[in-house]
Amino acid sequence: MRYIVGVMGPAKARKKDVDNARVLGELIARREWVVLTGGRDVGVMDAACHGAKKVPGSLTIGILSSARERVSKYVDLAIITEMGNARNNVNVMSSNVVVVCGLMGAGTVSEVALALKAGKPVILVGATPVEEKFFKKLGGRLIATVENPEEAITLMMKQFEQQQPDLVQGARSWGV
Amino acid sequence: MRYIVGVMGPAKARKKDVDNARVLGELIARREWVVLTGGRDVGVMDAACHGAKKVPGSLTIGILSSARERVSKYVDLAIITEMGNARNNVNVMSSNVVVVCGLMGAGTVSEVALALKAGKPVILVGATPVEEKFFKKLGGRLIATVENPEEAITLMMKQFEQQQPDLVQGARSWGV
Amino acid sequence: MRYIVGVMGPAKARKKDVDNARVLGELIARREWVVLTGGRDVGVMDAACHGAKKVPGSLTIGILSSARERVSKYVDLAIITEMGNARNNVNVMSSNVVVVCGLMGAGTVSEVALALKAGKPVILVGATPVEEKFFKKLGGRLIATVENPEEAITLMMKQFEQQQPDLVQGARSWGV
Amino acid sequence: MRYIVGVMGPAKARKKDVDNARVLGELIARREWVVLTGGRDVGVMDAACHGAKKVPGSLTIGILSSARERVSKYVDLAIITEMGNARNNVNVMSSNVVVVCGLMGAGTVSEVALALKAGKPVILVGATPVEEKFFKKLGGRLIATVENPEEAITLMMKQFEQQQPDLVQGARSWGV
Repeated sequence: MRYIVGVMGPAKARKKDVDNARVLGELIARREWVVLTGGRDVGVMDAACHGAKKVPGSLTIGILSSARERVSKYVDLAIITEMGNARNNVNVMSSNVVVVCGLMGAGTVSEVALALKAGKPVILVGATPVEEKFFKKLGGRLIATVENPEEAITLMMKQFEQQQPDLVQGARSWGV
Repeated sequence: MRYIVGVMGPAKARKKDVDNARVLGELIARREWVVLTGGRDVGVMDAACHGAKKVPGSLTIGILSSARERVSKYVDLAIITEMGNARNNVNVMSSNVVVVCGLMGAGTVSEVALALKAGKPVILVGATPVEEKFFKKLGGRLIATVENPEEAITLMMKQFEQQQPDLVQGARSWGV
Repeated sequence: MRYIVGVMGPAKARKKDVDNARVLGELIARREWVVLTGGRDVGVMDAACHGAKKVPGSLTIGILSSARERVSKYVDLAIITEMGNARNNVNVMSSNVVVVCGLMGAGTVSEVALALKAGKPVILVGATPVEEKFFKKLGGRLIATVENPEEAITLMMKQFEQQQPDLVQGARSWGV
Repeated sequence: MRYIVGVMGPAKARKKDVDNARVLGELIARREWVVLTGGRDVGVMDAACHGAKKVPGSLTIGILSSARERVSKYVDLAIITEMGNARNNVNVMSSNVVVVCGLMGAGTVSEVALALKAGKPVILVGATPVEEKFFKKLGGRLIATVENPEEAITLMMKQFEQQQPDLVQGARSWGV
C-alpha cells in the first residue's frame, strides 16, 4: 500500500495557505507519497493537487462530497462519496497523516477534530497562537505545529522512518 | 415536524457537564421539544436523555455510530447510521439547534465545526475563554455562549419565537 | 426503545403500492409501533406516513438523503443524513423489520439487499413471481412474502411476540 | 482523471467468479484503467486486485467499510470510509462502470441496485436467467450481460471509445 498524505484547508483560502499547499503537494509527490484532498477545484484542495502534478509519476486522490461538485483538474482519482460534509471523515481515515494549511474554515476544523478522534497525527502549518493552544489541548501529542511546508515534510520523514510503511494506517503514535 | 434540539458533549465528561446535560434534557422536554444525542449510555449523551425522560410524554432520539454500540436506556428511538464518527454530521444536520456541554472531546469539537459548516446555530454552555475565542472567530453570529442550561433555554425560546417551526431545519439566522 | 417498522417502496409508485403503504402505515400506528420511511413527500414514503398520522398519538420518522429534499408533511421527525442513496442503509439498520410495497425501483431493491446483508427480516407485499424467486434465493428465511398489509401485520405480530422488544434491533431470526 | 472500473462480487465466491475476477483485473489493468473493489482480502475483491497487480504499472483502489477490515495485499490505495455497508454506494459512485462476478451475495445485489439508481452502466458476468430477468427489468439499457471477462472488456472498450474520458463519471448512456 502507498503512503497517503492528506492536505486539508479552506476552499476560500488566503494566498499564504494556497502557496503553502502548492509547495507541500510538490514536496510530497517528490517523495513518491500520494496526495489526498477534498478534490474540488478551489483553494487548498486544488493547490495541493496542482503542486503534486508538477512531479512526473505523481498520484493525487480527490475525495468528493458529491458527483455534482467540480473536480480539480489536478486530481487523478476522484472518489465520489455522496456524503456531504461527512466525507471529511473519509479524508482523514484514508490519510496516514493530515497536514493543514489554514484553519479559518469550519470544514477544516472538523477534519482536524475527526483526525484526532481517530488517532491520526496532524500537522498544522502556520497556525495562530489561539489555534495552536486550542488544538494542543484537544490533541496532545497527535498535534504538531510547523511554520512552513519544508518543516512539515521533515516531520513526516521522521514518522515514516519510524513506522513500517504498512503500519501507517490508523497509527496512534506520533513521536515528534 | 417536531423541533429537535441536539445536545452534544463528551462520552468521558466532567461532572459539571453531565449535570448541565441532565438539566438541559429536562428543560428541553418540558417545552415539548425533542432531545437528540449520540445515543450511547455514557457521558453527556446519556445524561441529556436521562433528564428528558423525567418528563412524561418526552421524546429522545439517539443517533448511533454502529449497531454494536450500547444504547442509553433513556433513548426512545435509536437511529443506527453505521457511519462511525461521520454520524456526527447526522447529529447536527438533524438538529434545529446544537447545545454543547463540554468541549474537551474531539468528537464534540467536530460536531460544532460541522454544525457551523451547515449554518446551524450552536450554543456553548460553560466554554473556556480559549474555546470561546476560537469558536467565535470560526462561527461568528452562529455561536452563542452561556453559563448554564437555563440561559440556553432562554436563547432557544427567543429563536423559536422568531422562527416558524417549519423553517427551523437549516436556519442560518440566529438573532442573539 | 420503541419498535420501528420501516416501510419501503418507490417514489414513483403504482396506485396499488401507494394504497398498501397507506393501510400499512395506519395498521402499524394502531399497534403503537413507529413508522420509518425515506421521508420524502412522494410515493410509498409519503403514503405510509400519511396512513400512520390518521392514528392519534402515532409517530413517524423520515430518514432524508439531503436537507434539500422536500419532507412529507406526515413526518414527525426528520433525520437528515446528507448521505445520498447510502441513507438507504440507515433506513434498514434503524428498522426492526422492513416491509416493502413495490419493487420496481432500484432504491427499494438496494434497501432489501442491504437489509438482508444486515440480517434484518423483510416482508414483500405483492411481489411478482420473479421478484419472489430472486429474493428468496438471496435472503432465505429472512424473506417473507404476503399478499396484503393485513398479512404483513399478522407476521410482524408473531415476530414481536417471539422477541423481547429490546432484542429486535439486529435480530437475525424470523420464524415464519 | 483516470478511468475507473469497479469489480464487484461476493466475499464468499464460487471458484468460477474468483477466476473471472482475476482475469478481469488483469485485462482492465492492461488497458491502463484503474481497478476499484471493496478492498478486502477475500473473494472477488481480492481476486480482481490480484489480477491487476500482475501488470506492471497497474493501479488498484480498495474502498473499505472500516479500518478494522483486513486489506487485500493487492490494493495500492486503501480508502477507509467507516460507513459499513453504505460504502457500497461509494464503490459504484466512484466507478465509471461496474462489472459483477457473481450475484449470490446481498452486498453485491445492493451494489448493482445502487449503481442503477445512480445511472451507472453495469455488466453482469455469467448471471443466471432469473438474475438476468430481474435486473433487466430493473435497469433496462443500463444492464448488459456477458458470459466471460473478455466480452466485458469488449463492451467497455466500446463505451470508452464513445465517451470522452472526462465525461465518464455519472454517464447515463450505455450504448450496447
